[in-house]
Amino acid sequence: MKTDTTTDAAANEFVLARHPEGIPVAGDFTLSRRSLNALEEGSVRVQTRVWGIDPGLRSRLSGVASYVAPLALGDAVTGFVAGKVLQSRDAGFAVGDIVTGSWGWRDIADVPARSISRAPEREGLPLESLLGLLGIPGITAYFGMLDIAQVQPGDQVLVTSAAGGVGSIASQIAKLQGARVVGLAGGALKCQWLLDTAGLDDVIDYKATPDLAAALASKFPQGIDVVFENLGNAMLDAVLPKMRIGGRIVVCGQTADYNLAPEQVHGVRNTRSIIAHRLRIQGLVAMDYAARYEEARRDLRAWAREGKLVTQEDIAIGFEQLPAAFASLFEANNLGRKLVVAA
Amino acid sequence: MKTDTTTDAAANEFVLARHPEGIPVAGDFTLSRRSLNALEEGSVRVQTRVWGIDPGLRSRLSGVASYVAPLALGDAVTGFVAGKVLQSRDAGFAVGDIVTGSWGWRDIADVPARSISRAPEREGLPLESLLGLLGIPGITAYFGMLDIAQVQPGDQVLVTSAAGGVGSIASQIAKLQGARVVGLAGGALKCQWLLDTAGLDDVIDYKATPDLAAALASKFPQGIDVVFENLGNAMLDAVLPKMRIGGRIVVCGQTADYNLAPEQVHGVRNTRSIIAHRLRIQGLVAMDYAARYEEARRDLRAWAREGKLVTQEDIAIGFEQLPAAFASLFEANNLGRKLVVAA
Repeated sequence: MKTDTTTDAAANEFVLARHPEGIPVAGDFTLSRRSLNALEEGSVRVQTRVWGIDPGLRSRLSGVASYVAPLALGDAVTGFVAGKVLQSRDAGFAVGDIVTGSWGWRDIADVPARSISRAPEREGLPLESLLGLLGIPGITAYFGMLDIAQVQPGDQVLVTSAAGGVGSIASQIAKLQGARVVGLAGGALKCQWLLDTAGLDDVIDYKATPDLAAALASKFPQGIDVVFENLGNAMLDAVLPKMRIGGRIVVCGQTADYNLAPEQVHGVRNTRSIIAHRLRIQGLVAMDYAARYEEARRDLRAWAREGKLVTQEDIAIGFEQLPAAFASLFEANNLGRKLVVAA
Repeated sequence: MKTDTTTDAAANEFVLARHPEGIPVAGDFTLSRRSLNALEEGSVRVQTRVWGIDPGLRSRLSGVASYVAPLALGDAVTGFVAGKVLQSRDAGFAVGDIVTGSWGWRDIADVPARSISRAPEREGLPLESLLGLLGIPGITAYFGMLDIAQVQPGDQVLVTSAAGGVGSIASQIAKLQGARVVGLAGGALKCQWLLDTAGLDDVIDYKATPDLAAALASKFPQGIDVVFENLGNAMLDAVLPKMRIGGRIVVCGQTADYNLAPEQVHGVRNTRSIIAHRLRIQGLVAMDYAARYEEARRDLRAWAREGKLVTQEDIAIGFEQLPAAFASLFEANNLGRKLVVAA
């Protein structure tokens, strides 16, 4: 990487150093220090305060096309962030404004004004909420559970990765709608949090569950109406035969599959249930709801303020923690929304 | 089978003699002759005129539960039929009425009045239309294409089993909505019919196509918006990566999988497209639309009358042809709706 320290303004960024095979490691990324040119008209210089760490990034690291372009070697890692305006050459932003964008793993960045947004009203919620409850995780959970799953009172709901950033919010939204919610998570700590703090009805600790099909049958004797699915094909195959008539499966993430080569991915065979039980299986990308973000945030803020919806963050301190924080997402020891906060 | 010829009224039926393994053969069914008791109050004696021959029956023959109960050995084969009332002990039906029901592979049957319906208005269409355009095939095609797929002008549409009873109607409905429609069928005869008579934009003859993925890529350079899917998992897996953002896959039948043991069914792996392209995969059972049948029939009759929608029947003559007609469904030489008509 080229290093240039001849200008007074410099910035650090992490770039993709190699395409990870299997589970990513911190060494898949390299720190690069770049000089910053004079800020261009229409651009804004931002200092990052919080980085969101998302498993979905994994699908962009292998060089295979997905719903966003794959990263090439040497590319700066993208991702949702929040920060403060250091300098502005756009009428829409002033120094000190809090903004959000997807400038990624950079400590300071010059970005086009049109690529960032003024941060939404937090109503007393902490800055981190911009990348959690009020960010893509909260919005994903909200529209996934309400718009796609259309969860109804009395519905039998399974949320996978239930203790994660999206799943923990999705679970509680389903509870608020009057559903019975069972969370699937790995480990006693996460399961206890789901029961005691998030108020779920029941949990499946997959680390202590040798027979997932039997666990699903036992926790859902009447079958499942809604699955909020974050794991991938093996889970999809397991839930299909348990679905009730008119069941909905929101495909929100495929974390367990992101590290697999295509031929290693589990083959889904229980598709007879799709017709037999008139299932709807639907993919979810929060950005499709951009025009309705404020609708979600209004409810999410109110629920949080009233104590009806709790959030849990897993925070690492310091820009240099980004690669390790991302790699740790796949260790299945995560409780809550993974974030890195500037030191 | 017990045979009784001591009463003056007797009836024939085909019963399941063995659970077929793989492709069904005529010998999986046995003819049984039964005496008829005096007709009970609230029942109607019907003489079958037309039997609909549906691949979906296959899924009930293996003794495995599906969306309808599986048939046990010795059970009379069920299925949609149309017939004439011979005798009635119900105020709702009179001798000579044309009725439809699902009394199946029987030439004469005593059925509860509540289990049959007066045939809908045909407006000059032949009796066979009760089991085709105006029956479950037409209604499946109609709600599948309009209600579930929500086909739009300009959509790129693939219909599999396009020359079959459902697919041929679904293809033409999509054309009537202004979509570009490519039909997948086996053999030159069917493909020619789809192009020349049904007016499709293009066809894929899977018998002449060694590389299905390449054929899909060539016929859909811009990708696919709607798949009306009648075949099963291998086709589902092949179309997933070709889908455009917001694509819809209507799972209407799984004909190619019905004859396979569960472990032989193709494992679907290309599920990354579900999130990447925000797909909706949805199962369809026409009976769920029972309250809206007349809505479909009104349009279907009008299109047929105006010459905008053509139908093709593949008719065998005589009750005794039922087992062979059913077995022939899986020979892939079928053009149009398979029916048996009473001699």
